[in-house]
Amino acid sequence: MQRAIPTAARTFATSANRLAKVTPSKTHLAVTPTAETLPKGFVVTGVHAGVKKKAGVLDLGLVFSKEANTSAAACFTKNAFLAAPVLVCQDVLQQTSGRANAVIINSGCANAVTGKQGLKDAWDMVSATDALSSKLLPAGASPDQGKHTSLVMSTGVIGQNLPINKIISAVKELPVESLSATPENWEATARAFMTTDTFPKLRARSFQLGGKEVRIAGIDKGAGMIHPDMGPAPQALHATLLGLIVTDAAVSPPVLQSALTYAVNRSFNSISVDGDMSTNDTVLLLANGASGMQEIDSTSSQEFTVFRDELTSFAADLAQLVVRDGEGATKFVTVNVRGAPTYEDAHQVASKISTSALVKTALYGEDANWGRVLAATGSTKLSAPINPSTVSVSFIPTDGSPILPLLKNGEPENVDEDRAKVILQREDLEIRVDLGMGNEEASYWTCDFSHEYVTINGDYRS
Amino acid sequence: MQRAIPTAARTFATSANRLAKVTPSKTHLAVTPTAETLPKGFVVTGVHAGVKKKAGVLDLGLVFSKEANTSAAACFTKNAFLAAPVLVCQDVLQQTSGRANAVIINSGCANAVTGKQGLKDAWDMVSATDALSSKLLPAGASPDQGKHTSLVMSTGVIGQNLPINKIISAVKELPVESLSATPENWEATARAFMTTDTFPKLRARSFQLGGKEVRIAGIDKGAGMIHPDMGPAPQALHATLLGLIVTDAAVSPPVLQSALTYAVNRSFNSISVDGDMSTNDTVLLLANGASGMQEIDSTSSQEFTVFRDELTSFAADLAQLVVRDGEGATKFVTVNVRGAPTYEDAHQVASKISTSALVKTALYGEDANWGRVLAATGSTKLSAPINPSTVSVSFIPTDGSPILPLLKNGEPENVDEDRAKVILQREDLEIRVDLGMGNEEASYWTCDFSHEYVTINGDYRS
Repeated sequence: MQRAIPTAARTFATSANRLAKVTPSKTHLAVTPTAETLPKGFVVTGVHAGVKKKAGVLDLGLVFSKEANTSAAACFTKNAFLAAPVLVCQDVLQQTSGRANAVIINSGCANAVTGKQGLKDAWDMVSATDALSSKLLPAGASPDQGKHTSLVMSTGVIGQNLPINKIISAVKELPVESLSATPENWEATARAFMTTDTFPKLRARSFQLGGKEVRIAGIDKGAGMIHPDMGPAPQALHATLLGLIVTDAAVSPPVLQSALTYAVNRSFNSISVDGDMSTNDTVLLLANGASGMQEIDSTSSQEFTVFRDELTSFAADLAQLVVRDGEGATKFVTVNVRGAPTYEDAHQVASKISTSALVKTALYGEDANWGRVLAATGSTKLSAPINPSTVSVSFIPTDGSPILPLLKNGEPENVDEDRAKVILQREDLEIRVDLGMGNEEASYWTCDFSHEYVTINGDYRS
Repeated sequence: MQRAIPTAARTFATSANRLAKVTPSKTHLAVTPTAETLPKGFVVTGVHAGVKKKAGVLDLGLVFSKEANTSAAACFTKNAFLAAPVLVCQDVLQQTSGRANAVIINSGCANAVTGKQGLKDAWDMVSATDALSSKLLPAGASPDQGKHTSLVMSTGVIGQNLPINKIISAVKELPVESLSATPENWEATARAFMTTDTFPKLRARSFQLGGKEVRIAGIDKGAGMIHPDMGPAPQALHATLLGLIVTDAAVSPPVLQSALTYAVNRSFNSISVDGDMSTNDTVLLLANGASGMQEIDSTSSQEFTVFRDELTSFAADLAQLVVRDGEGATKFVTVNVRGAPTYEDAHQVASKISTSALVKTALYGEDANWGRVLAATGSTKLSAPINPSTVSVSFIPTDGSPILPLLKNGEPENVDEDRAKVILQREDLEIRVDLGMGNEEASYWTCDFSHEYVTINGDYRS
């Protein structure tokens, strides 16, 4: 009853010159901290256990505090499908009321959706690490028999069981003397976190707190399935973002959790690579007090505020490394939403813009497509209706030149496309949206959507 | 304080053989209905007005009912930034209490975020169409002077003003005799809707209703910024999906709106190309009664149910054409979520899976990556908590072979990867998720995320 008619092919064939554009090298972002900035009282290593098939590739990391009363805090994914290591960490932290001395991390297999075997494997990793940890603690400081004090993180493929014997053997056979606080060992530990990451993500710094110098070091890994939404344990959440931060500051467990929750909301929960939540997302924080400072045991002290803000700034640095190394990313984009009635509204709009496939492909194409920013803004459900005539959109150049208004109070500006092109050609860019509805603001960090993103995720079983 | 260390480049370079995979031709989906299936009492045309620069490319469509009392219903985008034609349509339908005789459509420019000038332009399009419409109505049937009865739709670039003089001239200079009910004119009208579409999307069918044969015809266009969420007028919503359905059935305006709202929820609001909502999304429905049937004026009649279900089935066909022609799409995927406590929960999960960049790139890569389906499912906020141990995921082949279970009650199956590969290599596929939480279900239609999607959206200012 119907006859076929000829039609024109879409003329947007993938052209050679577009494809010639490759992800810029991120090598310069790989740095090893100097020994002075690394927290006291921690020893670490990264080894090849054989989770990853390629010989010599590091896939197992171990981090130990040599102080008996080390505080621990954690934020986990909100995904309904919690991976075994997440469930085990929640259990350990509940048993110990926020104390943990060690963390074991493997890459190459997420131990997620692995049923009872997966849970048993995660517990076996904890037990093996507990045994090693007890050798490192001061005499007489070992926990009671059967009481766990180690935490576990896994990242990699979902739905496959760990090669658990290889992991346990690697831990058991590890010479205690191979654990150390050297920058080289920290770098090896960071490498053991990596999946599709192109560089180990390790940072450290020191700051004054309570009259003492304290040190903080952190490792994290991305780089896909990144759109975390994490809350404090034992609130269940989602993952393929792993973060581990250790400090020689002295902070009591509940206060440490309070600081971490605040910091994660403003760092790891404000980044997006692809808008997908994982089953393993975990950020752990250990504080062992080896700096000799007096313990912070209240959130109302001045020291708490200093610590919380330093931690937030440090966590934001670590989180931004994940975006910079986002799968296929060629741009690093800050999305700042201001003039919102509430912080949550600002965060929602920033998240919507940061995860829009159309905004992200336009950024890749270096196209000043503010219409897509506006469409994403307008499709967000807020606590109050958006008034189109109060909304403004601008690009903020990173070279210090004046801001480029695109839309002012709902009316399009006559945009200098040549200048827009110059701004967009830089690797770093800020998009600013002013809703004109209030005084709250939030920032989000995102990357673009490139051909390479599709290649990586079309080929990689994660 | 920190020294750079060398690191390995990510080894997922865009390989030539992956890029050689191009979007399959959709030419076979372009069909022109036979004259018998086209609704009586409508005349149409598609012309080149000059909104698009390329000479001869159709960019202006006109559809007229020759019956005086034609009923009209509409669903519009929920985006906060409503394009001028959406605001004007809402105003016309309110003025006329759901009566309209004509529709004017342009492609090439969305007339969105165009301020007061944009509103004036949209009203000018309506007035010019009113004047032409009055020449086509039976003698004495013209509406009162100054009363509008035409509707307007625009699609294309956001933030630019229409070349309004060209459009008005084209309408004024159009010979009335060039309007007709021929399949060729319908095809030209469908072509005038196209932006990045690779074929005109036109369908027609006939069915029995109230003892008469009635006919229904529809045109729509995609193919990016497709994740509609539309409600009935005048509820304000979002767009770059345009749909126009006309029928010679006789249905009173409020009953027509009720049928359209039901149909749109189960068709246009259940498709996704990229998860982005537009400022112009509009689906219009005209019913002129030229079939001679008795008017349906109640939603409780048997005829209403027949009409509503035929309309829903027809709208789903039209909506699926948009997904099949999704920008860069190489796959057509049905996501069926069942065992949900409510229809809304099922729709939410289906939407989350259908918009996941990781699921869509895995589909492009023909990878049986059920872990990503599960991660998307688990990150959806539902009315009740998901119990991982009751969730099952399967692939439903489209060749009639047995279903392929991937996850049963939370436990991974031993998947035959070779068979999974065969199923995934087909253009059509169904992903089924059973939540094991109730009896409600919903289906969503989506496509994959390809290199060509990135190319199209990195290059095209939409």
